Amino acid sequence: MDSGEQGRFGTDVYAGRLRAATAAAADAGLAGLVITPGYDLRYLVGSRAQTFERLTALVLPADGEPTVVVPRMELASLKDSAVVELGVAVRDWVDGDDPYRLVADALGGGRVATAVTDAMPALHLLPLADVFGVVPVLATDVLRRLRMIKDAAEIDALRKAGAAIDRVHARVPEFLIPGRTEADVAADIAEAIVAEGHSEVAFIIVGSGPNGADPHHECSDRALQVGDVVVVDIGGPYEPGYNSDSTRTYSIGEPDEDVAARYGVLQRAQRAAVAAVRPGVTAEQVDAAARDVLAAEGLAEVFVHRTGHGIGLSVHEEPYIVAGNDLPLEEGMAFSIEPGIYFPGQWGARIEDIVVVTADGAQSVNDRPHELVVVPV
Amino acid sequence: MDSGEQGRFGTDVYAGRLRAATAAAADAGLAGLVITPGYDLRYLVGSRAQTFERLTALVLPADGEPTVVVPRMELASLKDSAVVELGVAVRDWVDGDDPYRLVADALGGGRVATAVTDAMPALHLLPLADVFGVVPVLATDVLRRLRMIKDAAEIDALRKAGAAIDRVHARVPEFLIPGRTEADVAADIAEAIVAEGHSEVAFIIVGSGPNGADPHHECSDRALQVGDVVVVDIGGPYEPGYNSDSTRTYSIGEPDEDVAARYGVLQRAQRAAVAAVRPGVTAEQVDAAARDVLAAEGLAEVFVHRTGHGIGLSVHEEPYIVAGNDLPLEEGMAFSIEPGIYFPGQWGARIEDIVVVTADGAQSVNDRPHELVVVPV
Repeated sequence: MDSGEQGRFGTDVYAGRLRAATAAAADAGLAGLVITPGYDLRYLVGSRAQTFERLTALVLPADGEPTVVVPRMELASLKDSAVVELGVAVRDWVDGDDPYRLVADALGGGRVATAVTDAMPALHLLPLADVFGVVPVLATDVLRRLRMIKDAAEIDALRKAGAAIDRVHARVPEFLIPGRTEADVAADIAEAIVAEGHSEVAFIIVGSGPNGADPHHECSDRALQVGDVVVVDIGGPYEPGYNSDSTRTYSIGEPDEDVAARYGVLQRAQRAAVAAVRPGVTAEQVDAAARDVLAAEGLAEVFVHRTGHGIGLSVHEEPYIVAGNDLPLEEGMAFSIEPGIYFPGQWGARIEDIVVVTADGAQSVNDRPHELVVVPV
Repeated sequence: MDSGEQGRFGTDVYAGRLRAATAAAADAGLAGLVITPGYDLRYLVGSRAQTFERLTALVLPADGEPTVVVPRMELASLKDSAVVELGVAVRDWVDGDDPYRLVADALGGGRVATAVTDAMPALHLLPLADVFGVVPVLATDVLRRLRMIKDAAEIDALRKAGAAIDRVHARVPEFLIPGRTEADVAADIAEAIVAEGHSEVAFIIVGSGPNGADPHHECSDRALQVGDVVVVDIGGPYEPGYNSDSTRTYSIGEPDEDVAARYGVLQRAQRAAVAAVRPGVTAEQVDAAARDVLAAEGLAEVFVHRTGHGIGLSVHEEPYIVAGNDLPLEEGMAFSIEPGIYFPGQWGARIEDIVVVTADGAQSVNDRPHELVVVPV
């Protein structure tokens, strides 16, 4: 990768991705792909364009050269992307033109079977379906392996993000002072996330005491108390945009025996799931590995979510580590392993690392200890 | 409206909107509407939910009661909306369930013709089309009149936003000091936008000298110079979320005669478009009113965009004031009137107010003078 000054990899990375995406579209028997702003566009050409009502689209014919269709007024949105250096054809349009026709023309016209990015809004998808004469399918299937299997540059980016969020977790105990609110702690963490090198904050969960029992609690004005168990789940993008996501659970003062015992089971469940990861094992087998450990101790019912999600440019992407997903893991996939246990009205706990599938197992991009972190009072 | 503490109107407002939307769906011969997070959802139930990969949807059957389908983990996202007070049925789901089937069931099952919100991502739209057996249409057509014609509470909200941005423009001259950069000025304006009561900044354009000739220029490190013409186009949401959007053009020191003369034509064009507004006149006639004034003075070619756009919860929404839009205006519609003239490499100018269609004309929510504002040097 280049220096990342422009918030993207070198142009050759995108050239390779466009070739691979075009080949995947051809293999799928499609006339081409249509990609509007979102993570697929950023993945393919490094563009962070965010237009909504005026169509911007990267058109990738299976048997031709790519074209970008873009409102003339938004031409500047391409300048930070690799579009210009890649020599991609640009078809600009002004109010009154029919941009959907330009897309169809770039695909050769006539009835065309296409795949579209998952982020494409109905506003554009339905008119495109009319012009194409065929309802598109999701490009997710075509781009799945490309997006899921991280290359060396992406894994390096995820490692840097992981190291940055580890540095934040190392500082969390000093923020957890009884009497301060969850919101106070979240403000400190927000500052630390940026100070440790992230370009921004993506999310911060500080769930203390009973709030820890809600997996998607963010933060509140609840003041921390001695004896609280506190779930801290944090992350953000690190240039050129790959995300961190790590959870640790803290105890303000020594935990009681019951908490310590149940936390120990959770720790074993997280370890079992990581140990289950290797090429050929399915996503649902990894989910089951965590779930089985909890179930054996009567904790199946309090693990109310999936074990993990893929991560990259997006915080949540494929592969999802969930029951029913029989996708076999492959080397280079990156995802969270984050079992949790939740006792409504009382407390909750979660342990989360991001792991990358290696030739014979999994390597974590995070290396903070997994034990319940006791904050002295 | 209520006090707006929760960032929404009173529950009765949303009850009326749901009734009207349901009636509109029935009139359109549809089985119902499916609304995922975005401005339509916020309009209908006051929800600011922002889920992406897990489906959240308001389902409005044309002949039944509404249902919200929501991931169990995201139930909390409903608490700031009117959903609970309205008594809307909630069907929550967990990973592994089929949320698309829940939507179809809420519509009575079988083949169903539906309309979906323009913001619905392909990720959800394509699976819904499969379950429904019929490709949905855009709900934009069904909700158009409802969203376009603002009620008294909405007009009040737009007036408050307009007054707030007027207060910011009143302060702009003090920021325009030669030697300071556009970015410096934008930072001052950002602070003023929030200080004057907006909940956040939506956009800031400071286009000085040649940068003013790019209608979508944002800001740069160009330093202001004596003699610059500066386009300042700014706005943001004001609780409960209705947007301001106003442009004034400034001259650092006295403008030269050519600038003054052309600016005078622009001012006449803006006034002519506002004067053309009344119920029954079409959107394109208003566009033409501005364009004709400019064309008569040889300035047709330098007015490179539409005359305006609707505004409300979204900064850009229907009605668009553009050639080809034969929509007749109705009392209560709100939109910008913002002709501009652009001389590449030299300078540009634009004048923009938000107007509301009244029984016999238009009323502006902005009241700053339209003259080129000369900043003394």
